[in-house]
Amino acid sequence: MEKKQIPYKIYLQENELPKQWYNVRADMKNKPAPLLNPGTGQPLTLDELSPIFCEELCRQELDNDTAFFDIPAEILDFYKMYRPSPLVRAYFLEKALGTPAHIYYKFEGNNTSGSHKLNSAIAQAYYAKKQGLKGVTTETGAGQWGTAMSMACAYFGLDCHVFMVKCSYEQKPFRREVMRTYGAQVTPSPSMTTNVGRKLLEEFPDTTGSLGCAISEAVEAAVSNEGYRYVLGSVLNQVLLHQTVIGLETKAALDKYGIKPDIIIGCAGGGSNLGGLVSPFVGEMLRGEADYRIIAVEPASCPSFTRGKFAYDFCDTGMICPLAKMYTLGSQFIPSANHAGGLRFHGMSTILSQLYHDGLMEAVAVEQTSVFEAAEMFARIEGTLPAPESSHAIRVAIDEALKCKETGEEKTIVFGLTGTGYFDLKAYESFNDGTMTDVIPSDEDIAASLARLPEVRIR
Amino acid sequence: MEKKQIPYKIYLQENELPKQWYNVRADMKNKPAPLLNPGTGQPLTLDELSPIFCEELCRQELDNDTAFFDIPAEILDFYKMYRPSPLVRAYFLEKALGTPAHIYYKFEGNNTSGSHKLNSAIAQAYYAKKQGLKGVTTETGAGQWGTAMSMACAYFGLDCHVFMVKCSYEQKPFRREVMRTYGAQVTPSPSMTTNVGRKLLEEFPDTTGSLGCAISEAVEAAVSNEGYRYVLGSVLNQVLLHQTVIGLETKAALDKYGIKPDIIIGCAGGGSNLGGLVSPFVGEMLRGEADYRIIAVEPASCPSFTRGKFAYDFCDTGMICPLAKMYTLGSQFIPSANHAGGLRFHGMSTILSQLYHDGLMEAVAVEQTSVFEAAEMFARIEGTLPAPESSHAIRVAIDEALKCKETGEEKTIVFGLTGTGYFDLKAYESFNDGTMTDVIPSDEDIAASLARLPEVRIR
Repeated sequence: MEKKQIPYKIYLQENELPKQWYNVRADMKNKPAPLLNPGTGQPLTLDELSPIFCEELCRQELDNDTAFFDIPAEILDFYKMYRPSPLVRAYFLEKALGTPAHIYYKFEGNNTSGSHKLNSAIAQAYYAKKQGLKGVTTETGAGQWGTAMSMACAYFGLDCHVFMVKCSYEQKPFRREVMRTYGAQVTPSPSMTTNVGRKLLEEFPDTTGSLGCAISEAVEAAVSNEGYRYVLGSVLNQVLLHQTVIGLETKAALDKYGIKPDIIIGCAGGGSNLGGLVSPFVGEMLRGEADYRIIAVEPASCPSFTRGKFAYDFCDTGMICPLAKMYTLGSQFIPSANHAGGLRFHGMSTILSQLYHDGLMEAVAVEQTSVFEAAEMFARIEGTLPAPESSHAIRVAIDEALKCKETGEEKTIVFGLTGTGYFDLKAYESFNDGTMTDVIPSDEDIAASLARLPEVRIR
Repeated sequence: MEKKQIPYKIYLQENELPKQWYNVRADMKNKPAPLLNPGTGQPLTLDELSPIFCEELCRQELDNDTAFFDIPAEILDFYKMYRPSPLVRAYFLEKALGTPAHIYYKFEGNNTSGSHKLNSAIAQAYYAKKQGLKGVTTETGAGQWGTAMSMACAYFGLDCHVFMVKCSYEQKPFRREVMRTYGAQVTPSPSMTTNVGRKLLEEFPDTTGSLGCAISEAVEAAVSNEGYRYVLGSVLNQVLLHQTVIGLETKAALDKYGIKPDIIIGCAGGGSNLGGLVSPFVGEMLRGEADYRIIAVEPASCPSFTRGKFAYDFCDTGMICPLAKMYTLGSQFIPSANHAGGLRFHGMSTILSQLYHDGLMEAVAVEQTSVFEAAEMFARIEGTLPAPESSHAIRVAIDEALKCKETGEEKTIVFGLTGTGYFDLKAYESFNDGTMTDVIPSDEDIAASLARLPEVRIR
């Protein structure tokens, strides 16, 4: 069969955009383990969750059975502001590598938040508005999620209070200004405004912060203020659900041209982009309809899949959040400050953790200097300066394409280019200056952190 | 006739992209006045121009007759990396304003240079490569052109030496890092590396620089180095020619849906984006096929159209460049340092100057705080944080849409959203802090600057 000429960029038409999110849990035989109440050791109920999260989002969080959720009209409208995102055929990169592989990337960076995070931010803001809330609190690491949430809250007229991991806050003053332009309040974390923050600063006055700690502060701020709820940009089932718009669009674009991928690659911090990208494909695998190689790429400095433990752990440093069964490095693990960009979370989505545990995914950890080499190469060849996070996926996509060059295999590789690096120039500067280093946690460090995992038995 | 449903974003298909640039000079009865050799007062010849610019670009510069130039295949390929750019229907903005007007914007910011500048950068790099040059020198104000040129040079393996206006260099360290990531050498201007720079620094040691001065330095660096030529990101006929890809795509997208604009709005610094956007429409006006209101928007702090003089002047502060007949504030005019962003050039494209002189265009000057008010509003409503330059056009588009609200007219307004403001957060910060001010040059200042215009008579 003669294949259609593949354009450089495949844009779906507006009427081809997904109208439902896909919940991969519905097709999983081994469901992800439930979130537990750390006090009782019992699975969390809707009543227990809803003081923290918006009610409709709690429902999505707990629903392991409904395969499709209608995307509300207001969210579909907002999606049209910056979606569909293009599925790009990396013709230039293929040529530069001299590989027979066909490389595609789903590019989520063409919006001011600079990443895929907006897909869930707008959904969470919508449900907060619908519930009649005044506003939300949240945390941000690299700043993408905070920006996305600020944009979404501006759209619905909600307050937005962002706790930003201190090292990012200092490295990225301009991220703060974007959030302010969208009307958000931004506080460096740890801060003196919460009990969790004050306690941590007493113990470690020089800490550069962590996503886990910022989460604790944001949760505390939400539950102590009437009319506020907490929103989280990754890890949670609800977030993966919203992010499936990425995978559904990708699949629709590939199907339109009769393309079947062999390998699907995504970077993994908390897992939302990877989960969103691969869910529809994993669904096919779970239903026995197709087979793919799925590769999660994580930083060697925060290697939850490849060096963590599949166990119940706190989602936050302050140990006030629910317990999740996931691949974790321990909630007290803080990646080295020299690690650039996001993907700093100690744990991983429970859905992805279960899929990985069940052998449906592979994982690989890569060092940041090799990630930035791939990033620079990609920028010069494909024209887009990628986010450090996304560049983890680029690194492995290039490696796989080079393997194809050796074997002569014409594999089809799809990866997620989650965002742009326009606010990561400090990291690029250290790479350009040759001062960037790789710091990999020692076995002892990881063992010490894992030794502090909570003891959990479901009663 | 029932109109087709207009999507939020109109993307042309790859096979609908323009394959030729359109040269509006071919349809102008009153041609733009020729560039003059400042030494002889005679029109510049190809031989005189080609030590400065690439030869093929000189031909394009001087050609007032050829209506269409084929876009070389290598450039068409590169265009596919980031084009077509979307023509966006501003449904959200229309709704927020409550206007019956239909608002569209052509968005050129979805590439790492962050603006339309890449359209000409890649063309100029291509011709430099084809001529066998080692590299190019250039200047950059806000940083968009320098980034674009760095990207284009990286693609063709050319050296790129960028003189960056000092106040931008200091305000935008991250712009410098993007250029470095693409392999460019970046020098703050005025610098001690050129005669022009040294002389200016002696006279005004505290100067924050100007585009005119950076141009002088870059030209000097080009002509003093074997195998180098100078490239310029605006003002020149050749640049307007390349930028017509914007207008041709816009027109094709509008035609596809049977939309006829009433008003076309663009910001004007040197004029390249405005000229590129409006050329195909002005062509129709010149041929008597259609009529449009065309509005150039310039900053009140650098108002060449609205307060300048239509006269021969130097294109650069150092007075080593050719003389161009244009609306100018005088080559020694330097806009106040508190003016944010680009559009700092003292003169204007000779093509646009002639069109304005002949009554084919209007011009309006706007103050920067009102520009940033429009920018913030647009960011919150339409989701994209705009460049300060582009926000000049947003300001006037909003003003025109509000007039329609008063009169009830359902006008169709098209404006150019030339780029994103991701590297302009210092300016946004001063706006967010409420410290931004408007500085408008006094009549005396402008008169003093215009008093230094060169005396020119074509012999």
